Amino acid sequence: MYYQAISRCTLMLQSLESWLNKAEQYADAKKFDVGVLLISSLAPDMKPFIYQVQSACDYVKAAASWLSGQTPPKHEDNEQTIDEVRARIRKTVAFADSVPEAQMVGAADRKISLSWAPGKVLGGEDYLLQMTIPNVYFHITMAYAILRHNGVDIGKMDFLGPVNWVDA
Amino acid sequence: MYYQAISRCTLMLQSLESWLNKAEQYADAKKFDVGVLLISSLAPDMKPFIYQVQSACDYVKAAASWLSGQTPPKHEDNEQTIDEVRARIRKTVAFADSVPEAQMVGAADRKISLSWAPGKVLGGEDYLLQMTIPNVYFHITMAYAILRHNGVDIGKMDFLGPVNWVDA
Repeated sequence: MYYQAISRCTLMLQSLESWLNKAEQYADAKKFDVGVLLISSLAPDMKPFIYQVQSACDYVKAAASWLSGQTPPKHEDNEQTIDEVRARIRKTVAFADSVPEAQMVGAADRKISLSWAPGKVLGGEDYLLQMTIPNVYFHITMAYAILRHNGVDIGKMDFLGPVNWVDA
Repeated sequence: MYYQAISRCTLMLQSLESWLNKAEQYADAKKFDVGVLLISSLAPDMKPFIYQVQSACDYVKAAASWLSGQTPPKHEDNEQTIDEVRARIRKTVAFADSVPEAQMVGAADRKISLSWAPGKVLGGEDYLLQMTIPNVYFHITMAYAILRHNGVDIGKMDFLGPVNWVDA
């Protein structure tokens, strides 16, 4: 299930990328610079949209890496334009998609250490359920909330993305 | 992992309950009725805080039920006060906690049908990863965002809750 869980997070990033198109259309229609949305936040002491994207990307990249026994590649946080934000998402998705399912076997048995928690480790399952999923969804939902609060025409179905319904 | 995933969602609801205390303290300090926060939303066409809580609760309740082979108990959406919101969360947590781990065995093989998607079913894994987790985190993060946007003193650690670090 590790591979499927990370795949779903990757798909969420692709949904996020599609909201950028709607943000751009909205800015065009209202005749303002879409860059305003990228630096918007929900409170003066909250992080802006661009940070929410970077952070969501990094949690996906880290999970795809650590759970498959790799050290995450470094992605600099230097995006400023909407095209650079798109590129950051695509780079992350391409990396996560490059990890084959077979390499995730044994993810449950891995011990993950994070630089900001020295001397501590998390088991693979705890890392997925307590760190990756909460943080990925937190930052993607916050990015959604910032756009939605500012009037961008996105809805719940844009958030959820495709669902694997089968005929009953 | 189904049991652990639902347990973590239940714990997120308990974090959400703790934010209510901070919301109350903030309302007291600023001398406004905390009920104002309960009906706040991030956009005029978005659902208010109270709905976000109800919805998060219902996705947790539904997952704990369907994945253990039960039909979810009905909880009416009639909360209006902060104490009623607390009670809704506690009722949901008590129900989810009442489902024993052994009853989740076989969750992956269940076919879940939802009333709003007639003629369709979701496999257990898809239901967990594509329906439960995205919706639970969406609504809990949105509840967080509404409080945070309005100045309630909550932070990322209040969101994440306890993490099972072990010594390296």
